[in-house]
Amino acid sequence: MQAAVLTAFGGPEVLEVREVAEPRPGRGEVLVEVRAAAVNNTDLWTRQGAYGLPGRPDAPAGWRGPVTFPRIQGGDMAGVVREVGEGVDAAWRGRRVLVDPAFYDGPGDDARPVGLLGSEADGGFADAVVVGADRVHDMTDSPLDDEALACLPVAFGTATGMLERGAIGAGETVLVTGASGGVGLAAVQLAAARGARVLALTTPDQAAAVRDAGATATVDRHLGAEELAAAVAEVAPDGLDAVADVVGGPVLATVLPLVTDGGRWVIAGAMGGPVVEFDLRRLYLHNVALVGSSMHTPAHFARLAADAVAGRVAPRIAARYALADIHAAQDDFARSAHVGKIVVLPGAADR
Amino acid sequence: MQAAVLTAFGGPEVLEVREVAEPRPGRGEVLVEVRAAAVNNTDLWTRQGAYGLPGRPDAPAGWRGPVTFPRIQGGDMAGVVREVGEGVDAAWRGRRVLVDPAFYDGPGDDARPVGLLGSEADGGFADAVVVGADRVHDMTDSPLDDEALACLPVAFGTATGMLERGAIGAGETVLVTGASGGVGLAAVQLAAARGARVLALTTPDQAAAVRDAGATATVDRHLGAEELAAAVAEVAPDGLDAVADVVGGPVLATVLPLVTDGGRWVIAGAMGGPVVEFDLRRLYLHNVALVGSSMHTPAHFARLAADAVAGRVAPRIAARYALADIHAAQDDFARSAHVGKIVVLPGAADR
Repeated sequence: MQAAVLTAFGGPEVLEVREVAEPRPGRGEVLVEVRAAAVNNTDLWTRQGAYGLPGRPDAPAGWRGPVTFPRIQGGDMAGVVREVGEGVDAAWRGRRVLVDPAFYDGPGDDARPVGLLGSEADGGFADAVVVGADRVHDMTDSPLDDEALACLPVAFGTATGMLERGAIGAGETVLVTGASGGVGLAAVQLAAARGARVLALTTPDQAAAVRDAGATATVDRHLGAEELAAAVAEVAPDGLDAVADVVGGPVLATVLPLVTDGGRWVIAGAMGGPVVEFDLRRLYLHNVALVGSSMHTPAHFARLAADAVAGRVAPRIAARYALADIHAAQDDFARSAHVGKIVVLPGAADR
Repeated sequence: MQAAVLTAFGGPEVLEVREVAEPRPGRGEVLVEVRAAAVNNTDLWTRQGAYGLPGRPDAPAGWRGPVTFPRIQGGDMAGVVREVGEGVDAAWRGRRVLVDPAFYDGPGDDARPVGLLGSEADGGFADAVVVGADRVHDMTDSPLDDEALACLPVAFGTATGMLERGAIGAGETVLVTGASGGVGLAAVQLAAARGARVLALTTPDQAAAVRDAGATATVDRHLGAEELAAAVAEVAPDGLDAVADVVGGPVLATVLPLVTDGGRWVIAGAMGGPVVEFDLRRLYLHNVALVGSSMHTPAHFARLAADAVAGRVAPRIAARYALADIHAAQDDFARSAHVGKIVVLPGAADR
């Protein structure tokens, strides 16, 4: 089969599209024919080894440390079960599925993610992938097509994890930062679907797309931290019940005073600056929590799968590439010019 | 009746012990004869008006803003119900009770505290106090005496709020900062009673008392932030599941990397410095939450009352004063020389 194989940490040249042996499902596993995959930051950072190591931030490493090469990339995928391994119900064969790309630290609905397809095991930038049967979710009844489903696992999974860990729900006023990015746009859409009033930080030229996704107001993210806080206060006169933040940086200190009693600031990234300075009194005098959120749990992914079956999510697709054009797809993604997901189509030439 | 009455914000001179009219319970209220009360930081800060106002940190104010004078002080009290108001079950009369000193923003077990006896209403530094019947908890079956019960509401209530909001439980390794203070010592005792392994930051001369309360190891809080983190790492080789922090300051940045995946850092005070700088990556790469915690909810106080009935708490009493000697009691408290609570005994001269 064809696959995009990472041969080392490095630039685009270490990612090769080539013929590899099709894997076979072992006990408790299934073989999924990949109908569509999607690109995420984690694919680029894993290729670059950009995660660093504890105490050695510049050391090349994946998010969990070392990566074994060659490694087929791709955390986002949807497809059809073609083969089932020993001990797996044969009824899965032929079913359209969404694949949970996470490996967990144990059983149970609240287990923690400690690995990811495309990093700790071969992923979905290939004609087929082998995954645990407990990681596939039946999409027979979902109104979403394969491309839309493929956009969900990483970005919408991470956004679901943020909303769940922050207990963000109906009737709340929620600010989403980095709202035109993959996770940010997913958070806008999922929070709006839950009945929250969504405000968003984004650029003026991407504001229309962010409002399309469900934001009722947008604020220019390029404003200085103080001006930005004033602009948020204007559209949230009663304060913020929660913040879904994928950016971090100086905005934390200036916007935190707008979070009301019992509020939650969920942080899932810090491209705006990981080292922050702020006043703890806002937290402890107002029972506000600053909640770190990484990926999702099995319970979170099950909720996302239910949203997909019920048609409560509709990912925005910005562009499509054949698997052979993975380098162009990753380039396109890195430029962040579009709002929406970049989809990769394995085997597209055959269909 | 005799009462310690605050006449204005200020020094000790604004707190007068004098004769006042005994209050009468209204509909849904009870009159509690105060058998014992206890001193907390909040009494001193309310007297001084030390809480400041938003944007005016030096403006004299109570924790919720303005305070109406004259105001009887005292948030901690235990006693016996002497009269019941209209609509209250007469069976309460004669019962020994623990008084929840909080006012809440609504009904329900998870309501938020928005007021406190001794600040937003008259408190327990008096021969008697009127409180809502839903704020008294029956202590008929508690093995604790009145003095011990009076030590619980504020310090153990706040500590229970910290443990509950941080979901701190059995088998976890928990670091408690400021462990010789009222809330800190309560957190040590309550966490140990839950089956947690408790480590504590304190001074060498107070370490023995903190170990008595349930800490298995102590670290000198006067070490520099880096040395302190190294010393904590030595007694917590597998990391910290949670931190119950009443101090804040630079320790947050150096000890946070010791908190393991899924860990919680609960912050309830910042005498060590409210403005902190730290790296958000520890939070979002490891699903760690920084949880602000102020006082308790009705559910938290019910858990504390159950602990009191079951004898799972045993407050340490450092000194006792008659109500007439309230100034000496507050002086003693402010010096922080003792480990344990300072108890005030209204009507002690009569018994």
